[in-house]
Amino acid sequence: MLRVILVEPEGEYNVGFIARLCRNFEVEELYIVNPRCDLNKALEFSAKGQDVLKSAVVVSSLYEAMRDLDLKISTSSIADSKGDMLRKSMSPWEVSQLVGDRKVGLVFGRESVGLTRDEILMTDIMLHIPANKEYPVLNLSHAVGIVLYEIWKTRGATPRKSVVSRETTDLIEKYVKTLYEAIRRGDGDEAMYIAVKRSLLRGIKDEEEGRAVVRFLRKIYMRMIHGNE
Amino acid sequence: MLRVILVEPEGEYNVGFIARLCRNFEVEELYIVNPRCDLNKALEFSAKGQDVLKSAVVVSSLYEAMRDLDLKISTSSIADSKGDMLRKSMSPWEVSQLVGDRKVGLVFGRESVGLTRDEILMTDIMLHIPANKEYPVLNLSHAVGIVLYEIWKTRGATPRKSVVSRETTDLIEKYVKTLYEAIRRGDGDEAMYIAVKRSLLRGIKDEEEGRAVVRFLRKIYMRMIHGNE
Repeated sequence: MLRVILVEPEGEYNVGFIARLCRNFEVEELYIVNPRCDLNKALEFSAKGQDVLKSAVVVSSLYEAMRDLDLKISTSSIADSKGDMLRKSMSPWEVSQLVGDRKVGLVFGRESVGLTRDEILMTDIMLHIPANKEYPVLNLSHAVGIVLYEIWKTRGATPRKSVVSRETTDLIEKYVKTLYEAIRRGDGDEAMYIAVKRSLLRGIKDEEEGRAVVRFLRKIYMRMIHGNE
Repeated sequence: MLRVILVEPEGEYNVGFIARLCRNFEVEELYIVNPRCDLNKALEFSAKGQDVLKSAVVVSSLYEAMRDLDLKISTSSIADSKGDMLRKSMSPWEVSQLVGDRKVGLVFGRESVGLTRDEILMTDIMLHIPANKEYPVLNLSHAVGIVLYEIWKTRGATPRKSVVSRETTDLIEKYVKTLYEAIRRGDGDEAMYIAVKRSLLRGIKDEEEGRAVVRFLRKIYMRMIHGNE
């Protein structure tokens, strides 16, 4: 279970965008601690995340927003300066591995000044999005988007299997080979055959695309056999 | 070299946020095709990305924004529906592997209607950010943020060598197109062309393999023209 917690957000557009992002990346709960902006205006920016925003839980302290969580993760654009143990950070992809089926809260601070040290201290882990060293400060909702995307990848992402059938693979091999045999001059030419076959088999995404490639190769072959009629 | 290309953006805040994101993730160039909003107002949202926005190149056609690029990548929230060869997509983490040291353009469409099919057809690859199947439509600048973050991770981490040269990519496109034109019967046949071109561009591993594919295609073409002598 994932909960996004915004601490004293100041901008309507950010709150609206974050509600939309919660919908895009299937976040279960949105909590807002002491909003400093008009949540009704924020609705304008939430598109199909309106319901998320309407059912957001507004509380008056960060403690209240976090007390039933298994894992509390704060976020900051200031991280990993020497000697500062509090701000030693994890990256979004490292954090995404920790979520599992726990009740996890992601805490994002104010647009202007982020989270205080005391607030960070209340959490278990601090997350930092690596970016340009000269300017790593992301806008609030864009930081939320990147973190949610990265966690969603790990949580929901069904790994994409290669789904080209054996039959289609065989046909591609057959036609590439037949074409190759029609044009080969010597043994050195075999490199061409291997290159084309492998590139196609590596590059084809699914059965549908594979069949379109087969049609192409078959037509080329027929045309070659029957000449330029 | 990375270029972000916005096609007819409609919202000042999105353009401003994108300029900021370009700075956050060290994008070299921002191009804007026919802006539908006030770029001066956009400055308000760009924070320390102001210089990026001030030096953005405004052009009047997508062609103009892309003509000197090695690899053109379109983006869409509509992807991978059955039968639609044009919208077979790659994920941000797959695309991030293709960048290397090539001149790459990332093309993002209008907030309201995205990119047209013709615009997508002008590009080499289509990228889609996987998200909630019921609502995968991200706000424009948040989509940009996620893609730039993912590419930055790969660029910053392990600088990959350029896989295939511009010249070789162009030759592959040229020969696949010429062969396609020799065998096409109707508009429905275009799917074959798209499938073969994309599978090859995706699958080819390096320059050497790319050149072998070019030799193969050239020989097939010569043989087809001169018939079965």
